[in-house]
Amino acid sequence: MATKAYAAQSATAPLAPWSLDRRDTTPHDVQIDILYCGVCHSDLHTVRNEWGGTVYPAVPGHEIVGRVTKVGDHVKKFKVGDLAAVGCLVDSCRECANCKEGLEQYCLNGSTGTYNAKDKHSGGVTYGGYSKQIVVDEDFVLIIKDNQPLEAVAPLLCAGITTYSPLRHWKVGEGQKVGILGLGGLGHMGVKLAASFGAEVTMLSHSPSKEADAKKLGAHNFVLTKDESQVRKMAGYFDFILDTVSAEHDYNMYLGMLKTSGTMVCVGAPPTPAKIPAFNLIMGRKSIGGSLIGGLPETQEMLDYCASKNIVSDVEVIDIKYINEAYERMLKGDVKYRFVIDMATL
Amino acid sequence: MATKAYAAQSATAPLAPWSLDRRDTTPHDVQIDILYCGVCHSDLHTVRNEWGGTVYPAVPGHEIVGRVTKVGDHVKKFKVGDLAAVGCLVDSCRECANCKEGLEQYCLNGSTGTYNAKDKHSGGVTYGGYSKQIVVDEDFVLIIKDNQPLEAVAPLLCAGITTYSPLRHWKVGEGQKVGILGLGGLGHMGVKLAASFGAEVTMLSHSPSKEADAKKLGAHNFVLTKDESQVRKMAGYFDFILDTVSAEHDYNMYLGMLKTSGTMVCVGAPPTPAKIPAFNLIMGRKSIGGSLIGGLPETQEMLDYCASKNIVSDVEVIDIKYINEAYERMLKGDVKYRFVIDMATL
Repeated sequence: MATKAYAAQSATAPLAPWSLDRRDTTPHDVQIDILYCGVCHSDLHTVRNEWGGTVYPAVPGHEIVGRVTKVGDHVKKFKVGDLAAVGCLVDSCRECANCKEGLEQYCLNGSTGTYNAKDKHSGGVTYGGYSKQIVVDEDFVLIIKDNQPLEAVAPLLCAGITTYSPLRHWKVGEGQKVGILGLGGLGHMGVKLAASFGAEVTMLSHSPSKEADAKKLGAHNFVLTKDESQVRKMAGYFDFILDTVSAEHDYNMYLGMLKTSGTMVCVGAPPTPAKIPAFNLIMGRKSIGGSLIGGLPETQEMLDYCASKNIVSDVEVIDIKYINEAYERMLKGDVKYRFVIDMATL
Repeated sequence: MATKAYAAQSATAPLAPWSLDRRDTTPHDVQIDILYCGVCHSDLHTVRNEWGGTVYPAVPGHEIVGRVTKVGDHVKKFKVGDLAAVGCLVDSCRECANCKEGLEQYCLNGSTGTYNAKDKHSGGVTYGGYSKQIVVDEDFVLIIKDNQPLEAVAPLLCAGITTYSPLRHWKVGEGQKVGILGLGGLGHMGVKLAASFGAEVTMLSHSPSKEADAKKLGAHNFVLTKDESQVRKMAGYFDFILDTVSAEHDYNMYLGMLKTSGTMVCVGAPPTPAKIPAFNLIMGRKSIGGSLIGGLPETQEMLDYCASKNIVSDVEVIDIKYINEAYERMLKGDVKYRFVIDMATL
């Protein structure tokens, strides 16, 4: 089925209208009319081939919400007319130990990303949510409720689960002091989620202009990380730091803010390696870890949790024709806090 | 009280006979006749001022076992004639959150090392176990049983607790696959302890000559880390890796051997920072942490555990006059696996 989309034809080309083919629904597939698609920094990295390996034309987008228009004969979870969502994954091997545990994001045989991944059905590459329709195996389609604005739900599929999963895995909650490093698409969800879990939340940012916003989002404290005296006061303060920054930064400064036995978890990957003297981990039994999105069961859990607590993303809804300008603004951090494409504009 | 000792008079001088003063026992002190003192790599680092800050004359030694010769009026745990041990710490603030939890090694006001630390009593510097006698507050003196050879118990006070503590903190045990990186004083205790906890233990070493020994110590498997094909086979294998190496090495190779959600913990501190791309932590939700010796309650727990399981260190007992040669051999890794000074030779 021919589907309107926006694609980049090369690493230097702007995103522009294109048409792609979606497969006919197999017995296990759900066909979805895409209503909104969030704009993630990964989309930009892929479009510009900043991680290498981009296949062109490239159609990004993995924060997808829409309405079911067709279901295969064996589909059980969805019927035509239902709301549905798709996140960063559309398939995995389903057989390895991690898949069996619902950790499809760590599939030992390689999960299938929603875009720019090998498509098992077409033999080509997967195309993401900057398009009118998508066809996905129901096991990789999430259920969403109708009690929240759909455009604000879309970013939960990546920014939401990327922050929810490590906060849950490392058992962040009441009585804990949590630092969220960076106030962007991920960071603003980190603040909302950690606060909702009952933790005392401190925003760590180098930009003083973010203080008021961070507090509006639920942060209890704000630390200006370029002010040495403020940083010094936080020595040994946090049980947990969620590091959402993907620009180069000094991990050791933040390790110094951890309490004994504290943990810092990275969800952003800067272009250069972290340089960490083992001593900074040994003194205080500290750890630094990483976390990648979330598996399907946890993503559904997160969506259900956010629906029950009325947590959504703060978004700026855009016309798809504005996408290239939106990328430039995203590069400058000039968005509060996620662009979401209204797919009716395509 | 004048006490015979061996001291370094400068960073370049060999260790040689010296005499120091031990304080008179206060009401809370225990005076110990030192029978054996283990030789730790930290002794050498301190003597040669490799970490900076060494005060000369320097008397190292923090793996001390001996017999109580005098007790203060308020001492409850010990009487004259009892066996006793002293490890890496002789004091701490006792008031901070960590001290109250029995994590004196992470004392927030700075614990007092057994040597080369500010001595609260004398106002000078603390002198370690390369000496005939030592006087220590009973709260920092450990109880040892008489069912094991004392010379082989001595290294438990540093090499033992340094490996025991992280294996316990990260809950290493049955059903887990554990890698021990490096077969020296720490590594050989790591193998014995991890195996005794029921884990499947693999020795990771760049020296093929260590295979037979590692297996004798209790390792189930051996991986030669300079053989790429052996390394490749271990991808995603371990739940936990204990890294005892303090020479420069590539952390990323070992992170690659961790399973999803696996943890690698450093107890050795190389001179240069670890260079770790965040991506290597993110893909597989991996963590790298550090751990420093252990607190007093856990050190006692470790000694009791080792006594009950008959676990001791493999040692080469030396005459104190041999200490400078022993240092040279230790630098070459030519010791199985800990030198211990017979203090009767002083």
